[in-house]
Amino acid sequence: MRIVIPLFDGFTALDAVGPYEVLRMLPQAEVVFAAAEAGPVVDGAGLLTLTAGAAFDEVDSAGILLVPGGPGARRHVTDEALLTWIRRIDATTDWTTSVCTGSLLLGAAGLLEGLKATTHWSAVEQLESYGAAYTAERVVVQGTTVTAAGVSSGIDMALALAALIAGRTAAEAFQLAIEYDPQPPFDSGSWAKAPQTAKDYLTSLRQRG
Amino acid sequence: MRIVIPLFDGFTALDAVGPYEVLRMLPQAEVVFAAAEAGPVVDGAGLLTLTAGAAFDEVDSAGILLVPGGPGARRHVTDEALLTWIRRIDATTDWTTSVCTGSLLLGAAGLLEGLKATTHWSAVEQLESYGAAYTAERVVVQGTTVTAAGVSSGIDMALALAALIAGRTAAEAFQLAIEYDPQPPFDSGSWAKAPQTAKDYLTSLRQRG
Repeated sequence: MRIVIPLFDGFTALDAVGPYEVLRMLPQAEVVFAAAEAGPVVDGAGLLTLTAGAAFDEVDSAGILLVPGGPGARRHVTDEALLTWIRRIDATTDWTTSVCTGSLLLGAAGLLEGLKATTHWSAVEQLESYGAAYTAERVVVQGTTVTAAGVSSGIDMALALAALIAGRTAAEAFQLAIEYDPQPPFDSGSWAKAPQTAKDYLTSLRQRG
Repeated sequence: MRIVIPLFDGFTALDAVGPYEVLRMLPQAEVVFAAAEAGPVVDGAGLLTLTAGAAFDEVDSAGILLVPGGPGARRHVTDEALLTWIRRIDATTDWTTSVCTGSLLLGAAGLLEGLKATTHWSAVEQLESYGAAYTAERVVVQGTTVTAAGVSSGIDMALALAALIAGRTAAEAFQLAIEYDPQPPFDSGSWAKAPQTAKDYLTSLRQRG
């Protein structure tokens, strides 16, 4: 199964790399990182560069399309070339998926209209503006469209998707391979749970830059 | 604080990228991905390329040294140039850390002798061969040395480390930013918990390639 992961300037690396580390273990997996042009693509923090092995023009189908989010995703919602490519690939996929604000790109491409979907907690209104029915779950499977909440949720999404594709035992094996037995030291991982002090800290961090 | 992440052929991308996405939010964070030579470095699956922005020779100190693991880590335990560099940087750090089999590189460099440490479940005996006292925890803080278990545990480690460096509120804010509210669909993330069928599947996967 060919797994295609589009990269664009300003993507969030963990959105792509978390699910990549799970889905690459699927039987007969072939992974393609693609971008407008093949070559280096810089992440949203401007600190990490991944290489796209193929240009969008060179990729015309996928078993799984996995669209990451990031600060760049919000900018690229008006990138007609990217949106056209996403629509074209989506027409060929078994599964079309997103992590974090990658859902905004699916939405802007018109692929979430009337569907239940999720996204990063900061992007709910924008997701709804594309006609999606925001669903406050970490992973939302609606038909062959699978959306995940913010950043780290891509790992949970990939395990759920792996089970749908290759069965529960395979997914459990992949979970063991990456030793995914999460034990966060705090319980601040969602907007509902995070203390106000953490929200205030994050707001000041984002204002600084 | 300068965060230095060494890359080598065969590293596991999530080992590096998980904690990167947390630690890069630390106040005054500066992140350097380094390798024997600056430029592209291919991961253990041979499918993903990250760019090292600096050569080891160009990096002579770090606030945090974060050593990822991966299939390549096991090969590099006899890479004296890498081990010498790790020892040199360790002498300058506030925190020396590893994810997954990155601990084997710290061990081979002689930095874990007599210390409590953890690693991927598949590398326990080799870790102990370097004089470390294997401790079956997800994150082990011993003085200024912090080791994490397999792959995905680097996220938990980074949050714990962020709290030690910048306080609990900062760490909670970082957890919210990456929406780390893990909900794995199965409970197969440790050797103790995984069903035998998953272990058998993983064994056959590794034998295939």
